[in-house]
Amino acid sequence: MELKWTNRHNMTMLTDFYEFTMANGYLKSGMQDTEAVFDMFFRTVPENGGFAIMAGLEQLVDHLKSLEFDDADLDYLESLKVFDQDFIDYLRDFEFTCDVWAVNEGLPIFPGEPILKVKGPIMQAQLIETMILLVLNHQSLISTKASRIVRAAGERTVMEFGARRAQGVDAAVLGARAAYIGGVSGTSCTIAGEYFDIPVMGTMAHSWVQAFPSEYESFVAYAEAFPDDAQLLVDTYNTLRSGVPNAIRVAKDVLEPLGKRLKSIRIDSGDLTYLSINARKMLDEAGLHDCGITVSNSVDEYLIRELLHQGAKIDNFGVGERLITSRSDPVFGGVYKLAAVEEDGHLEPKMKFSDNPEKVTNPGDKQVYRLFDRATGKAEADLITLADEVIDDSKPLTIFDPYHTWKRKTLPDFRAEALLKPVFVRGKSVYKKKSVEEIRSFCLEQQGTLWDTVKRFEKPQTYYVDLSEKLWKLKDDFLRQNNPV
Amino acid sequence: MELKWTNRHNMTMLTDFYEFTMANGYLKSGMQDTEAVFDMFFRTVPENGGFAIMAGLEQLVDHLKSLEFDDADLDYLESLKVFDQDFIDYLRDFEFTCDVWAVNEGLPIFPGEPILKVKGPIMQAQLIETMILLVLNHQSLISTKASRIVRAAGERTVMEFGARRAQGVDAAVLGARAAYIGGVSGTSCTIAGEYFDIPVMGTMAHSWVQAFPSEYESFVAYAEAFPDDAQLLVDTYNTLRSGVPNAIRVAKDVLEPLGKRLKSIRIDSGDLTYLSINARKMLDEAGLHDCGITVSNSVDEYLIRELLHQGAKIDNFGVGERLITSRSDPVFGGVYKLAAVEEDGHLEPKMKFSDNPEKVTNPGDKQVYRLFDRATGKAEADLITLADEVIDDSKPLTIFDPYHTWKRKTLPDFRAEALLKPVFVRGKSVYKKKSVEEIRSFCLEQQGTLWDTVKRFEKPQTYYVDLSEKLWKLKDDFLRQNNPV
Repeated sequence: MELKWTNRHNMTMLTDFYEFTMANGYLKSGMQDTEAVFDMFFRTVPENGGFAIMAGLEQLVDHLKSLEFDDADLDYLESLKVFDQDFIDYLRDFEFTCDVWAVNEGLPIFPGEPILKVKGPIMQAQLIETMILLVLNHQSLISTKASRIVRAAGERTVMEFGARRAQGVDAAVLGARAAYIGGVSGTSCTIAGEYFDIPVMGTMAHSWVQAFPSEYESFVAYAEAFPDDAQLLVDTYNTLRSGVPNAIRVAKDVLEPLGKRLKSIRIDSGDLTYLSINARKMLDEAGLHDCGITVSNSVDEYLIRELLHQGAKIDNFGVGERLITSRSDPVFGGVYKLAAVEEDGHLEPKMKFSDNPEKVTNPGDKQVYRLFDRATGKAEADLITLADEVIDDSKPLTIFDPYHTWKRKTLPDFRAEALLKPVFVRGKSVYKKKSVEEIRSFCLEQQGTLWDTVKRFEKPQTYYVDLSEKLWKLKDDFLRQNNPV
Repeated sequence: MELKWTNRHNMTMLTDFYEFTMANGYLKSGMQDTEAVFDMFFRTVPENGGFAIMAGLEQLVDHLKSLEFDDADLDYLESLKVFDQDFIDYLRDFEFTCDVWAVNEGLPIFPGEPILKVKGPIMQAQLIETMILLVLNHQSLISTKASRIVRAAGERTVMEFGARRAQGVDAAVLGARAAYIGGVSGTSCTIAGEYFDIPVMGTMAHSWVQAFPSEYESFVAYAEAFPDDAQLLVDTYNTLRSGVPNAIRVAKDVLEPLGKRLKSIRIDSGDLTYLSINARKMLDEAGLHDCGITVSNSVDEYLIRELLHQGAKIDNFGVGERLITSRSDPVFGGVYKLAAVEEDGHLEPKMKFSDNPEKVTNPGDKQVYRLFDRATGKAEADLITLADEVIDDSKPLTIFDPYHTWKRKTLPDFRAEALLKPVFVRGKSVYKKKSVEEIRSFCLEQQGTLWDTVKRFEKPQTYYVDLSEKLWKLKDDFLRQNNPV
């Protein structure tokens, strides 16, 4: 039997209450069959990064495939004495019939562009808003953070160790999944390994060391139990005076006679630079050049960059709360906005206005293209178009900045790829499940198409997300009509 | 059939991998029946507050009641080729036999004191570490944050609106539960209402307003659909020039003829002070003194205090991402440490040493008492004792600061209450389930026993958490023995 994480319970009722009141209102207003288009997009990259990573689509698809209201749900809604009987009956017979498009999991994504689009009866498209945002915001947050940490660590290994500080069960398990997509090498979260085939890792806590009469005896017991994976935690008492010397003794006394090597030591407190440099020296002097050093206290991309700058001798990073909660910026601000509504038999584009220009939305039913330079393979820009536009990539294209329209750029020889791909067609899933491993590889490969200037940590280059001439004109006309002089 | 949130799936495998390797190691070392005591405690209150709020115990109890490894779990663990067959067999027949004590949900808690204690075979006590920390850290984080926001809002209503920005499904639903315990008045998360009998709230999004040909028509449609709960979102186009005037028209044209009143308006963007003051004036001039004003953009305790300081006219706060992720401090740092291990037939106290004095743990099997002044009813101090000590509250007691032992205080007439209460006895639950409503009331009542100096936001008074003479002596001897001159 295939294990399916999201099948553990039907979460259809995980919906903001206002989605229900609005849906009831649409029914009452005779708008139940009115077609609408909603976009999900985000406005800023966490921590002022140059790009984010899309994640969570598989769980969202599983959710949308299992939408249904059972008797308990309907009894509960009725008990609130807010809804019409018609509406309760509508929910009883609820059938999902929307079209959904989304970008691939693992894709680098940029502010302002639709990463998911829903087209269908406005009641339905409204009811699924909360779960769309919840699932994609959470996993994209963590995959984006993981990508930052992994890039800071360079060739060194990063392990996700955060379950105990995660914001609940899903945050631990799906957070581990998203972190793996973002590039970590494994997780401490065993169930994430079981469900998602992610490498699991871990050896001992301080309690192991304390449970024995001495540190040395605890190391001996561990090395005897796991001679092939002898990784010892050396900071319970005193790292350099006790932990490292005891680890070296065990390497000589217990492991070498078995023909085994000490795999690594882990340092979880203290001055990680000072301790790792000195531990490295002691290990090397004992001939344990192949023994790795793992550190695991308050690690994130900022600390990693600082430690490496200071010359710390570290091979592996164990990253806990700062990754699993994206502690330094714990919210991914994806929003879900109405882009078009059926009026008199056609889809009428809609816009949200705002005094803040960056909060004005893009109207209409849209598509997004990524434009790759054919010579370098690098992504040069994303172009948001109306859904029925065709991008001809057999000849040069001139794009322009939607705010400073005099800034123009011609792409002489490019390949255009449509990023929004069908996931549901008339309510039926056409999504092809990929392994997390495949998604992770795709993510790393796609990050390779970004210029280094977009990937740097401090003041990254802003990647171009432009509008097609046709979309820009539609939006500009809207703005002029609604802001008369 | 009773709905049980945590029954949606067996989460026994949500365990850090090192818990398994250690448990296998204990078995291999013949320590499978060795008794141990572990404490959970935390070291600092989020955001430098004066206290935290315990939450999550019910979900933890449900988890511990359903511990079991099924065939898929065991097959997975075997497939890793790390564990002994003996250990896999042990897990197949896993039976939970530990004693567990915990403080009540909703209790104000303080750094350094045990909030949960596990006593039993070290293998078992180790295997449950991850879930204990995960569940209690998460919900205590959110209940603590909610308590801060609710206290900042004073008599005004606070509503939890964060599901779409929560870190996963549990974070949304159990976060809503924890927020309610911490004092919010309701949630937008419908399923949290269904499962936990929490009031649910919400009316309309901007998409509702945009879906109609005009703002006025959208308000009319809503007021006609929900005349008893007419709450209108007024900032889609222009709050003061369009939204509030249209809301007033609807109050007059649609609601008054039905004998109904406009319940509230909501402002979700812009200068909340300026807009709320002017909207209040306009509503009052129209005779709508009873129409409330709700605001809901980037709200947390800091913004609430600032808005009220500026004289904003607000009746209700809708709080989203900043509550559901505890954005400004998104980690509750509870830890789980070994306090004693059986040696030669008795429990030998254990301590974790550290160069940082605040990271030194308290050894031994312990209890915590809260000492209330009988005259005022106020909590004066918590006292950590060894488990077999009896606090005689029929006569005065002198307590002392464990670091600055010359700081002493005598409580002339006090009542002592043991805070750690049995939850499991030899693996069987003795936990009496309480409604979330009861827990919330208990939480508010218990916050009433704290002096205002402990509750203030800036530099709160540090509440005394002292050690009994006997425990202090045990710890002091340990420290002297392990740090010889």
